[in-house]
Amino acid sequence: MTFTSAEFQARTARAQELMAALGFDALLLTTEPEVRYFTGFLTRFWESPTRPWFVIVPQRGKPVAVIPSIGVPLMVQSWLEDIRSWRAPDLEDDGVSLLISTLREVAGDQGRVAAPMGHETHMRMPLRDLDRVRGAVDLIPDEGLMRQLRMVKSPAEIARIAEACAIADRAFARVGEIGRAGVGLDAVFRGFQMLCLDEGADWVPYLAGGAAQGGYGDVISPATDTPLVTGDVLMLDTGLVHAGYFCDFDRNFSIGPPSAAVREAHATLIAATRAGFAAARPGARAADLFHAMDKICTGGAGGSDAGRLGHGLGMQLTEWPSLIPADHTVLEQGMVLTLEPGVDLGDGKIMVHEENILITQDGARYLSTPAAPEIAVLEGG
Amino acid sequence: MTFTSAEFQARTARAQELMAALGFDALLLTTEPEVRYFTGFLTRFWESPTRPWFVIVPQRGKPVAVIPSIGVPLMVQSWLEDIRSWRAPDLEDDGVSLLISTLREVAGDQGRVAAPMGHETHMRMPLRDLDRVRGAVDLIPDEGLMRQLRMVKSPAEIARIAEACAIADRAFARVGEIGRAGVGLDAVFRGFQMLCLDEGADWVPYLAGGAAQGGYGDVISPATDTPLVTGDVLMLDTGLVHAGYFCDFDRNFSIGPPSAAVREAHATLIAATRAGFAAARPGARAADLFHAMDKICTGGAGGSDAGRLGHGLGMQLTEWPSLIPADHTVLEQGMVLTLEPGVDLGDGKIMVHEENILITQDGARYLSTPAAPEIAVLEGG
Repeated sequence: MTFTSAEFQARTARAQELMAALGFDALLLTTEPEVRYFTGFLTRFWESPTRPWFVIVPQRGKPVAVIPSIGVPLMVQSWLEDIRSWRAPDLEDDGVSLLISTLREVAGDQGRVAAPMGHETHMRMPLRDLDRVRGAVDLIPDEGLMRQLRMVKSPAEIARIAEACAIADRAFARVGEIGRAGVGLDAVFRGFQMLCLDEGADWVPYLAGGAAQGGYGDVISPATDTPLVTGDVLMLDTGLVHAGYFCDFDRNFSIGPPSAAVREAHATLIAATRAGFAAARPGARAADLFHAMDKICTGGAGGSDAGRLGHGLGMQLTEWPSLIPADHTVLEQGMVLTLEPGVDLGDGKIMVHEENILITQDGARYLSTPAAPEIAVLEGG
Repeated sequence: MTFTSAEFQARTARAQELMAALGFDALLLTTEPEVRYFTGFLTRFWESPTRPWFVIVPQRGKPVAVIPSIGVPLMVQSWLEDIRSWRAPDLEDDGVSLLISTLREVAGDQGRVAAPMGHETHMRMPLRDLDRVRGAVDLIPDEGLMRQLRMVKSPAEIARIAEACAIADRAFARVGEIGRAGVGLDAVFRGFQMLCLDEGADWVPYLAGGAAQGGYGDVISPATDTPLVTGDVLMLDTGLVHAGYFCDFDRNFSIGPPSAAVREAHATLIAATRAGFAAARPGARAADLFHAMDKICTGGAGGSDAGRLGHGLGMQLTEWPSLIPADHTVLEQGMVLTLEPGVDLGDGKIMVHEENILITQDGARYLSTPAAPEIAVLEGG
């Protein structure tokens, strides 16, 4: 499940290079992907909100873990050497003193300790405890350091995302086994998650979608037991995990023969995706991909309430950058993105489509097997 | 998926009563269970870290939602009337101005705005943005208000947790279909998640476990492809979700006939669980259940590195209180708890067991079907 020590050494060296340039004495990390990025610590135990977990990246040497003792047997399997623990939960002092003393030891009494504080981040610890840390240590913004590190994926990371995409490809190819007129959307959601597991997903953290006549109104709701009927457009959007890495793409299906409007909408979505793909190369900006797709979807109106037409992905379902007009992130080889255009069919109905791509040396490569312009058809009633 | 308006009215009225007693003008909430508690807003979209979501509970009247526009079609289905939105992600101002102006409007310019800041909580928004809010609004600790509200479950909540437990019961009864000597632990994990879905789980956010000769060393690691062999003890611990509510319990299985040590350890775990159950009633303290179980597991040594012998559960896999010596929470009718004793078999091997219970008027009731003292046996090689 984890990577070689060389992978973690490279990540840490790159972090320390950026830290030196920014004048940071240490980096304090509190969330699952941040901790895992430097340690390989992969567990579903983060589902429990009880215990805080900390990793400190020093200016030199390996990261230091400050974690609950329940995590020590797993963390000692990592490349780390300095693992400090306390018996959590401790209602009086849940690792805070240990964290403060370790930060002072690693960064120095007057050290500058940086932490991610910007867009798409949060500090996963009680605010009361964070205030105690800030009272004892000078905590400053990481200036996007973690964003910069994680946006560009290593070959080993890309291989995992590609495998997650391949698993979802195989599951989508089998939707006809579970979806047809008469089946409740909740049963389709359960069945699709089972297909993902059967095809090799470790777990399925994300499944969303919708189904309604001639398009759906919403793409983040849980499924109801309303049965599919002829004329419905069914959309399934999955983020399954393989070896700690996500895919994130969707597929549309017509229940019975599609209407002309649905056929056309789907073809427009694929044309938009292809335009986004054609614009994707090192040196292009995130906003360029937005505009390439938006031109086809809306004629250049500037997007929808979904807010963006794609994003990064990797250890999380969604990562930086955002494909929006305001995001001027310059694309680099090794970035993994989703292309996610949407079209408005009127009467509150929309359709969306999503593929996953890798930025390569001179362009891009699909990680998901790109869908055809013709919408797939499932058995009608 | 959601509850009646009466349920949300009751929750809000109880919150407002506590707010009045504590002198709070508003309550600011940022995490999934907190937002859902007052709105019923149920979506797996929280898997994406990109967008912040806010709910404000005023002194009087319904809660106010301040959310990304992508969530509006789902939130308008709730009992809320005042839903304010912005097109996220906005890299310059991701809802912060809108949040501040709404807080000032709801709480008054000099209003006291409380937020959860204690154990098991965090603020799910960028720290940079949180600092902006704290610069404009007097943000104070909620004094455990949300903890107090959520620890006692309503009959409608209890029914959902009970159904989640029943689904897991049925899945555990079918483990013989997927687990036997020769099968990799990763395949068992995949197969068990499929059984949970097949039995009615909406999704399976948590599955952990272990398998090794005569006990396991760790209960939070992901599965490897090492095949089960005769003499292994397999443990599966699941937190599956039904209608937004969790179960959280485990089962042990011996691959082939169990050794005397394993048989005895399992019987001890069940005896400890029964002792915890016998101690569980309104008026007892969380610590009392710890000591009842610990006396049987260790003779009263005071626990292990796991840190606790059970906890609350509900909208999250783990909730307050903690069954530890230091937690003096007085149990009340309507609390849902896990009993989770562990025994040390030496050589770094442990075994754990877990059941889910409800505190009733005069005692407790099992929500999971309690396991027998005899460990279940799967086919050996």
